[in-house]
Amino acid sequence: MWDVYAATGLTIRLPGELLAGLKEIVGESKVVKGDSVAAEPYCKDWTGQFTGTPIAVVRPESTAQVSAIVKLCQEHGTPMVPTGGRTGLCGGGVPTGSGCSIVVSLERMNAVCTVDVGARSITLGAGVILQTAQEQAREQGLAFPLTFGAQGSAMIGGVLSTNAGGSNVVKYGTTRELCIGIEAVLPDGSILNGLTGLRKDNTGYDLKDLLIGAEGTLGIITAAVFKLSPLPRVRTTGFMSLASLADAPAVLNALQDRTGGAVEAYEYMSAAAVEVICREFPETHLPLDAPAETGVFFEVASSRQDDAEAGEDGETRLQHLVFEVLETLMEAGTVLDAMIAQSEQQRIDLWSMRESILEAITANGPAYHMDIALPLASVAEFVTTMDSAVTDMGFVPLTVGHLGDGNLHYALSAAEGKEWTDLPLTRAKEQAFALLMRLNGSFSAEHGIGQSKLDVMRNLKQASQLNAMRKIKQALDPGGLMNPGKFIPKEAS
Amino acid sequence: MWDVYAATGLTIRLPGELLAGLKEIVGESKVVKGDSVAAEPYCKDWTGQFTGTPIAVVRPESTAQVSAIVKLCQEHGTPMVPTGGRTGLCGGGVPTGSGCSIVVSLERMNAVCTVDVGARSITLGAGVILQTAQEQAREQGLAFPLTFGAQGSAMIGGVLSTNAGGSNVVKYGTTRELCIGIEAVLPDGSILNGLTGLRKDNTGYDLKDLLIGAEGTLGIITAAVFKLSPLPRVRTTGFMSLASLADAPAVLNALQDRTGGAVEAYEYMSAAAVEVICREFPETHLPLDAPAETGVFFEVASSRQDDAEAGEDGETRLQHLVFEVLETLMEAGTVLDAMIAQSEQQRIDLWSMRESILEAITANGPAYHMDIALPLASVAEFVTTMDSAVTDMGFVPLTVGHLGDGNLHYALSAAEGKEWTDLPLTRAKEQAFALLMRLNGSFSAEHGIGQSKLDVMRNLKQASQLNAMRKIKQALDPGGLMNPGKFIPKEAS
Repeated sequence: MWDVYAATGLTIRLPGELLAGLKEIVGESKVVKGDSVAAEPYCKDWTGQFTGTPIAVVRPESTAQVSAIVKLCQEHGTPMVPTGGRTGLCGGGVPTGSGCSIVVSLERMNAVCTVDVGARSITLGAGVILQTAQEQAREQGLAFPLTFGAQGSAMIGGVLSTNAGGSNVVKYGTTRELCIGIEAVLPDGSILNGLTGLRKDNTGYDLKDLLIGAEGTLGIITAAVFKLSPLPRVRTTGFMSLASLADAPAVLNALQDRTGGAVEAYEYMSAAAVEVICREFPETHLPLDAPAETGVFFEVASSRQDDAEAGEDGETRLQHLVFEVLETLMEAGTVLDAMIAQSEQQRIDLWSMRESILEAITANGPAYHMDIALPLASVAEFVTTMDSAVTDMGFVPLTVGHLGDGNLHYALSAAEGKEWTDLPLTRAKEQAFALLMRLNGSFSAEHGIGQSKLDVMRNLKQASQLNAMRKIKQALDPGGLMNPGKFIPKEAS
Repeated sequence: MWDVYAATGLTIRLPGELLAGLKEIVGESKVVKGDSVAAEPYCKDWTGQFTGTPIAVVRPESTAQVSAIVKLCQEHGTPMVPTGGRTGLCGGGVPTGSGCSIVVSLERMNAVCTVDVGARSITLGAGVILQTAQEQAREQGLAFPLTFGAQGSAMIGGVLSTNAGGSNVVKYGTTRELCIGIEAVLPDGSILNGLTGLRKDNTGYDLKDLLIGAEGTLGIITAAVFKLSPLPRVRTTGFMSLASLADAPAVLNALQDRTGGAVEAYEYMSAAAVEVICREFPETHLPLDAPAETGVFFEVASSRQDDAEAGEDGETRLQHLVFEVLETLMEAGTVLDAMIAQSEQQRIDLWSMRESILEAITANGPAYHMDIALPLASVAEFVTTMDSAVTDMGFVPLTVGHLGDGNLHYALSAAEGKEWTDLPLTRAKEQAFALLMRLNGSFSAEHGIGQSKLDVMRNLKQASQLNAMRKIKQALDPGGLMNPGKFIPKEAS
């Protein structure tokens, strides 16, 4: 009844029945052994930091198959690791090294990609790539507004399971806010069918939002319905230099008020971050004449026809509104300098600059990345205090962030002439997290927990909340088979 | 150790210690016995349909007091019924008749009502009345956009626990979508402190949304933070007659596109509903010359200064945009007739008509109310099919609804000359719910479950979801002491 099977150097006992059962469910060719070449891509993620070897990789194509797989794994007591594009940054979508789990790849669940034009919604299988969903919506004259760097590889199941954010959250919200219903296979194999697309439904606990952002620990999301938005007809994109980061919320509010809440992106780019980008990508066009200590990249977009119409001066109405705001703020001294892209090429250049930051930091040398959120009023205090503290320690902070959401990607790199390994990283982290907690911040704004933040989670998450989480996990997944070793830190023994 | 205490005619054993303990926590005057005159208001709700007598009513004024009360009740095994304004429609906020629970009224938790102007958020204690919160926001030039009939009495704790909706959801979302953090006392007495006001936080299961809409069955919400919006500077309000209810989503989309998503209210008013309003309130101004078979009341609002500016013809820009849409739709034959309020008085008249419907139906005679949601594309099919079916049975359907959300308040009344008690209500309900389920609708769009919809919940809720709910409830409230007899139907024995 039992095979002996070698994975990750360990010899473990695997029920031959399990593999046979999986093959029966999805077909022979859709199951590969974990130590085979075909399984390799599933053993690591985008970061390269997280690796592990599963027993096998199974690739279902329907919700019924996922349900059958979950039931079978429950019978065998086999852990399951749901996976999609593996573009997450915290190792949530790869097996841990223990070699006893089954990877359930949702990549073949990509057949459903249906736009409802009247209801302005889209239904998507878990395996649909985000960019495909965006394109599908656009073809129907609508926008699926979620957008981030990895959108060409990230799959909807992972997008949901990590509650992905990105640069348009300030206008459209996170994945959670865009999603209006999910279908999922619960740990007992039963199917939660919530693809109704209803805008209101007060019939029970909010299971949708419980599964969104749960990183596969409470079930496997197989499909979802999302709200769509009208496609913008006109965009105004620019860059400004603020006198103080503390003014950022007021500047955003001024832009929002004048344009009726049309700001789509409002991104902090510190002078040091821009400097590194220019160093690594010398062809970068600096948007302003002088470096901006507090740079903000912004994009305002409107679907209104009258906003897209050009006045006598050739400016669109939207551009005119943005100019008016900037003028007022420059007179007030809040904005020191500003530019607005005058061509699509200038717009692309601005976006390229923003999007090249992670690559630039990586090329620049070793760095420690934090993905934190702060109350809007405390962003400036955090940055000022920490920048000063870590600079004294020999670091250079390379900070960008989704300023409209209070979300900073705060990265520490070594100052020129400093050896990374000589720097007091532990002390810097401790100080940053202590300040973050004092300011009521979050130690994971949009990347999630996965494997990489389990320690931080154990140390910093409120005990009442961690307890409640453990109770919920235990109740819905008593065997602990759904994506174990992620998201919820083990209790100290 | 035990007193004998009479409540609701039952003689039950009450630990004298419990009352003494409660008094110690909140003070002598803040605990009243359940059969006293002072407790009477807490024994029934707005509908008058749900009554019950508790052991006592306790009125804490701080989260620490709520926590102490919960811990004490847990020690004594005493059920707790959290309550606020008791304006719910399903009996969630009143004790059941069994006479063994403590009512925990949050009304004194109203001291916190703080606007953060820069972050555009408001922090509110559970006992703050919705209208007070609206006023507080308005004083700071911002809008707390949640709005519904009972806003002068409804308290924030109840608003959250029922995930209240109302007529502005089409633009601003339900309570859930407006709330960005809660503070709550969990069933074990621990405090979940989530009043950070963060816009992004991916550190664990979404406990906020689990507690919102849970009707007090997983804990007691003590405070919350909500997003605020810019105050509209200009509104355009009107009424139109559609050629077909099936066109409603397209008409809404046309209005949204032209105005950049500025539609705040989009309300269906059937001819029969308007007729009853005119009968009961003869001073009602009919908005159009002829009765509209498919009437839609709408309001479009903008915070943009340029939308509020009047052109040469004296029209505001917003009004101009709405006129343009209506003109196009009238030419296309989709809109048969339409009017736009030309004065604040006309606007108030339109709102009065919309808001008097429940009173008019009540005055009109016996009626059965359904609060249902449908996918936008299926609203017309439901109304057409059911209207015809129930009319044949001798009913008159009096339907209004939040059309932008697919939410119908579908009420059945007796046709002229018919005796209510003679009509086949059970058959009509069965047929309506069967059709609703076939069309993937919800049997409770915004009113919740409480006591009144437990049977429907038992019969119609998906088994996988009901199971998951029961497991979560059991995990977080193993003694079943939080608002028992509500929300989750008992399993058939």
